[in-house]
This record gives sequence, C-alpha cells and structure tokens, in this order.
Amino acid sequence: MRNIIRAEIITIGDEILFGHILDTNTRWIGNELTSIGLLPVRKSSVGDNREDILRALRESFGHADVVIVTGGLGPTRDDITKQVLCEFFDTRLVIHPDALALVTGFFARRGRELTELNRKQAELPANAAYLANKWGTAPGMWFEKDGKVLVSLPGVPFEMKNLMEHTVLPRLKRRFPTGSIIHKTIRTIGIGESFLADRIAGWETALPPHIRLAYLPSFSGVKLRLTGTGTDDGLLTRQLEEEAARVLPLIEQFVYGYGDDEIEETTGRLLTEKNATLSTAESCTGGFLAHKITGIPGSSAYFTGSVVSYANEIKMNVLGVRKETLDAYGAVSEQTAREMADGVRRLTGTTYALATTGIAGPGGATAEKPVGTVWIACSSAQRTVTSLLKLSPFRDVNIEQAAMHAPRLARQFLA
Amino acid sequence: MRNIIRAEIITIGDEILFGHILDTNTRWIGNELTSIGLLPVRKSSVGDNREDILRALRESFGHADVVIVTGGLGPTRDDITKQVLCEFFDTRLVIHPDALALVTGFFARRGRELTELNRKQAELPANAAYLANKWGTAPGMWFEKDGKVLVSLPGVPFEMKNLMEHTVLPRLKRRFPTGSIIHKTIRTIGIGESFLADRIAGWETALPPHIRLAYLPSFSGVKLRLTGTGTDDGLLTRQLEEEAARVLPLIEQFVYGYGDDEIEETTGRLLTEKNATLSTAESCTGGFLAHKITGIPGSSAYFTGSVVSYANEIKMNVLGVRKETLDAYGAVSEQTAREMADGVRRLTGTTYALATTGIAGPGGATAEKPVGTVWIACSSAQRTVTSLLKLSPFRDVNIEQAAMHAPRLARQFLA
Repeated sequence: MRNIIRAEIITIGDEILFGHILDTNTRWIGNELTSIGLLPVRKSSVGDNREDILRALRESFGHADVVIVTGGLGPTRDDITKQVLCEFFDTRLVIHPDALALVTGFFARRGRELTELNRKQAELPANAAYLANKWGTAPGMWFEKDGKVLVSLPGVPFEMKNLMEHTVLPRLKRRFPTGSIIHKTIRTIGIGESFLADRIAGWETALPPHIRLAYLPSFSGVKLRLTGTGTDDGLLTRQLEEEAARVLPLIEQFVYGYGDDEIEETTGRLLTEKNATLSTAESCTGGFLAHKITGIPGSSAYFTGSVVSYANEIKMNVLGVRKETLDAYGAVSEQTAREMADGVRRLTGTTYALATTGIAGPGGATAEKPVGTVWIACSSAQRTVTSLLKLSPFRDVNIEQAAMHAPRLARQFLA
Repeated sequence: MRNIIRAEIITIGDEILFGHILDTNTRWIGNELTSIGLLPVRKSSVGDNREDILRALRESFGHADVVIVTGGLGPTRDDITKQVLCEFFDTRLVIHPDALALVTGFFARRGRELTELNRKQAELPANAAYLANKWGTAPGMWFEKDGKVLVSLPGVPFEMKNLMEHTVLPRLKRRFPTGSIIHKTIRTIGIGESFLADRIAGWETALPPHIRLAYLPSFSGVKLRLTGTGTDDGLLTRQLEEEAARVLPLIEQFVYGYGDDEIEETTGRLLTEKNATLSTAESCTGGFLAHKITGIPGSSAYFTGSVVSYANEIKMNVLGVRKETLDAYGAVSEQTAREMADGVRRLTGTTYALATTGIAGPGGATAEKPVGTVWIACSSAQRTVTSLLKLSPFRDVNIEQAAMHAPRLARQFLA
C-alpha cells in the first residue's frame, strides 16, 4: 500500500479573493505536485486578513502533509503573510544575512538605494529555512513541524514558478519519496456525458482500483481522464495505454485526440500529412471557426483564409452562392452550406473547404428552423458532405459548438 | 454600522483540483457576490472525495453566512456532491417532480429517451429548495440552516452563471439586505494601469471614503470600478455619476464605454446611428475580429462580413492588394493594411472597413518587425487612417488585443 502524501495550496491576497485577477498559480502548482506524486486535496484563497489566513493555515496544516502558501510577501502594508506565519509557528522575524545580500545586490544592479521597506524583505521567521529567490526580492520560506512541511512563496507567477522548479519540487521529492501518478486523457466530441457513460459502463466497472476515471465535460466535448497510481511509471503508463485501447472500440467515432490535442490541431495534422490545404466560409460562426483554426501556431501552412459571409450579398457576390438557391431554400439550408463550401474552395484554390450557416440566435428563427439549427458542409473537388446540427437556444453556445463540429466533419471526411 | 455578510465559495471536482482545467467560476462568483454587498472571505477547491468535501463544507459553513458550492452534480459515478450534501444536512435523496419534468422535456426536445442516469439528475436532498436549471440537466439546490444559506450549483460555467444571475443573486439579495452598494465602471483602452493611475492620482486621493476605486486590468484594457456604499441608492448613483464626470476630462481619449459596454457594442451603436455598414479584412486576427463583432446580437444590421486573408494569394486575388505593395513593404506594413481595408470595403460595398495585419507569433518575426508588430487600418470612401501597434510576445494576447484596437480605431474614425 502506497503512502499517500496529501498536499494543500493556500493563495493569499485580496486581488484573487475579490476576483480582480484570475488565479493561474494554483492550477500550475497542482499540476506540478501531482507530477512528483503528491496528492493535492484542497486549494484555498483568502484575503490579506490576519484571522482568515490563520484559520486557513490551521485547517490546511492540520490535515495535509505538505502546504504550499503563495502571496502576501510584498513590502507594502497590506502584505502580512510573514507576520502571520510567525504567529502561527510561534516565532519572530530576524534579518537573514543571505537574503539581505541578495536584496541589496538586486537593487545595486538596478542602481537604486535600499529603502527601509526593501530591507524588511530580508526578514524571515527565525525557524524558517531560507529559499533564495534569484528572480525577485521576496525570499521563499520552508517550515517543518510534526513531520509536515509548509512552504511560503511570493505570488508573482514568474518568481513562484522558478522557486518551485529549482528549489521546492526537488526538495519535496527528496523529503517525500512517493510512488507514481500517471494521467491519460481521451478527448471526445459529439456525444453527451451520460450517453458516453452508458456506452462504457461495463469497461468502467471493470477498471482496477488503482485506476480512476473522471468525466470532464465542456462546450468542446467530454474528456475522459484516467488516473493511475502506483510505484512504477513504466508499468502504469502501459496499463493506462491498455485501458485506453480497451475502451476505444466502444467510442471510436467520437474520439478525436488524446492529452492536450485540440480538434483543430488533430485536423491540422491530418491536413499536413496529406499535404492538403483548407479554407472556410462562415455565416453563423462569424469568424470564430477561422479564429480557432488560426489559433494553432503554424496553421498558415495549411489554412489560407476564410470568407465570413454574414450578408447574403457576400454569399452571392464573393462565394458565388446562387440567388435561386437562397430564394428556394433560404440561407440556412443544406444547399446553401454546400454552395458556400464549394464557392470558397474554388475562390481560394484549397484542397478542402468547410462552411457553416445557421441560426445562432436570439433572432432569425422560424417555425421549421428554430434557434440552434446549423448546417455544416465539407467539400473537395470530388464530393461534398453536409451535416445538420440541432444545438441550443443560446447564441454563444451555438457559435462555439458549430465551430467544433466543423473540424469534426473535416476529420471524418479526411480519415 | 453595516452588517457584514461573509461568503465562501467551494469548487468540487478533481479536474480543477488537479489543475486540468482553469477555474474561472470562482472569480466570477466572487465579483458577483461583492456586487450585492456580500464579503467573500475564502474560496476553496476540493476533489470528488467524500471526506474532503465534508471537511470543506464543515469548515466553510461553520465560518460563513453564505456558502456557494459548484460542481460534482453530473449524472456519472464520479460526481458525489448530492450524496455528500445529504450526509452533511442529514437527509436523503428524493425525486423532485419539477426537476423530473424539466429533465424529461430537455431530452424530449432533442428527440432522445430519458436514461436511468438522467433520471437521477431529478433527485434532490429532501430538505433542499429546488432551483430550476433551464440551461442544462443538473438542478441547483438551496439549503438553509442556523440562519445560514448554502447553495449548490452545477460547475458548467454557462449553467452556473445563468442560475446565479436569474435565481441565486436576486434571492440572496432579498435574504441578506445589506444596504446599498452601487458600482459604476468606466472602460478604457490604450493606456496601461500605472499610467492611468498617474493621470488620475489627484482625483483618486480626493474621493470620499464611502466611494472606493478599483483598477481591473485585462487584455482588453483597464476598467475603473467605482463602488459606493451607503443607505440611499439614488444618492449613491448621483454621487458616482458626479465622480465619473469629474475624472472623464483627464482620460477622455481612452474611454470607450461604461458598465458592460464592449467596444464592439459602442462601435455598433455608432454605426447604427450613422446608418452605416462595416466589413473587415483580417490577417493576424484570423477571424477573431469578425467573431467579436458578430458576437453582438443584431450585428447583421451593420456588419456584412469579413475576408480572413491568411495567405498572400487571398490578399491579392480576393482583396486586390497589389503584388508590388507586398513585394516592396511586406504583408505586415501600413501600405498592405491600407490596401486590405480599401479592398474589402469595395468588395463588400460597405461604408467603412477595418483591416489587421501583423505578426502574432511565435514564428514570422524579423529584426525590424518583432512578434507583436501589428498594423490596423480604417477606411471610408474619403480617407483611410492607420495605426501601428506594438503588442506582446504572446500569440493569443496579440490576437485579442489587435481585435480590440481595431474597433477602437473605428470609433475614433467615426466620432
């Protein structure tokens, strides 16, 4: 039985608590702790308030083996983390000579005098080990008590990350040698969470106890994350690969990638392999499809451009959609989607083209075509395929989902 | 003396705890609770683990007046929030008829059968008040005990936000009347936080103590949020208007709107007033500018479309940019931006046109044109204006900021 090392993360600062800045530190720290085999069990944020910080320290240090605290180490009046840590560990602040030398050097290199406020940054609680911060002025601190570790780091992401990578993580790894935790994520699109769960229920039930499954739903499909815990990285990796191979036949038509693969990325790789190019003609997605495709660095190798034909005149004059088609079937129709895709492909001379036309909402719906009705088309010189989507009542959801389903259609077309 | 209502937020789910997705919910919830006069004092995240959830509930409900819990309400096996809430509030799950009707309808509209798993979504703890979720299948829950309130909501941001806005926030406001808190937000673009602070330092110092100022910087510019607290909504509103009028002359050229106004919206209103139309030609923004413009419902009244000319061939063949221009100045140049804007305006027959061309990164930089170099242009039949942006080393930041500065240029052009 593995020894589980529980970790908690505490973020200190009004700016995060009140939601004025987005906390990206704890996500990063959680990932890194997991990677060295610690188990993050809780993250919390409190403001620059003595009682709230003390309570968070008490509650976290009481339950976890490792506590990482970030923030509140600046020189200004509102930063009180060091004083509260002194209170919590029953000690007092003393000037640390190495910290003082580092801060003095930091300002000297910038040609500035050391102020009294800066000098305070070299003060550390007497029982803390000093963690040199070469990337800023606030030192890190390492406390040990009752077999547990508490680390206090500056909240500036760049300084925190460097301190973690170069000092804290290697030290934690030595202090708490643990087993392995390995993740494997399977990305699906076009099937809801509960339908997915029904399909793979038998496989899920048969998973061994050291491999856990999580469903991560979002606009862009449902991700299945397998987490294996054990002692042997290689063995775990093989076991996760085996489980992924076992579940694949049950859901193959919905799987578009693994790990961090985005659907635009896997589609882009397919195009690159085939030495092919792509263009898009967009009505309801209004440029969002091209935006997703061009979000991938290097996409200019296979993506030439898009015509966002919001007005029917552009559909006709730029893309060559026929007036008769628009009159007979309307702008939101299989026929229009088909002519848009063919038109942009001819206009831009690409191997393939994608088109979207639909009613994003809130306006524009009819009895036969409610909000959320979207036609997508994928065209090559040989053939054109189309797909009807019945999405949601909500404009932003419809735009986002249509822009996901279009590359999904391209992927099927290309495969 | 106002009564302080302390609020805590608990996020449940391995995916946030393990850092696989970025938690944007708690930031949003923190902002909204503050806006109705509650004081957020702590946020925490725990995994899908019974003991950790119970401990977080105990610790938060013990110290706060209001606890908002999100996540863990899906129909699959790993979602255990409802069972743990039953344990915490000493009750059991029962089918709620309204919830069952809503879930049944949700699937019927999509032409699908209700599975046993979906049926479970209509189960609620017996002592919870039911909060109808019209945006998904997992209902919200409202618990009251010892004069305190705990609300449990789905973790899907779109569902959570709608439930908060339409149900939870109005209900919390009635349950905990806290006096008046009025906000007024002034939106700026094109000036950094510290330069803004320097410009308005005198005004800021003279603000009365019951009116506080917050700087909310983001990719899309810096927002100044004034928060007034007191007992009289009307009086506070007048005082905030007076302060906003007082600061405006100091920063007028950077202000593009108030409150929730997006720059695309204020530009759209200007176009509508002038009975004018707009088209765009995009290179580095890759469709994101058209996406932002078409994100505004009703934008089809003034926006006809966009040509995303990622490849130089499209710039020449569709937009009519001259080969000599591209050869002499390059695709990222004032001259090309100008010809792109003129070209798309003529192609689509609009009153005005916007163009973007730049080096989003990571590739494509030269010594004279580093990553982040972007030219934007705004054109009418009479004249064309251009603007050079020197943005960041980061692709996503450059795309987003260029797509903000283009309507900013249009606004100046139109004003």
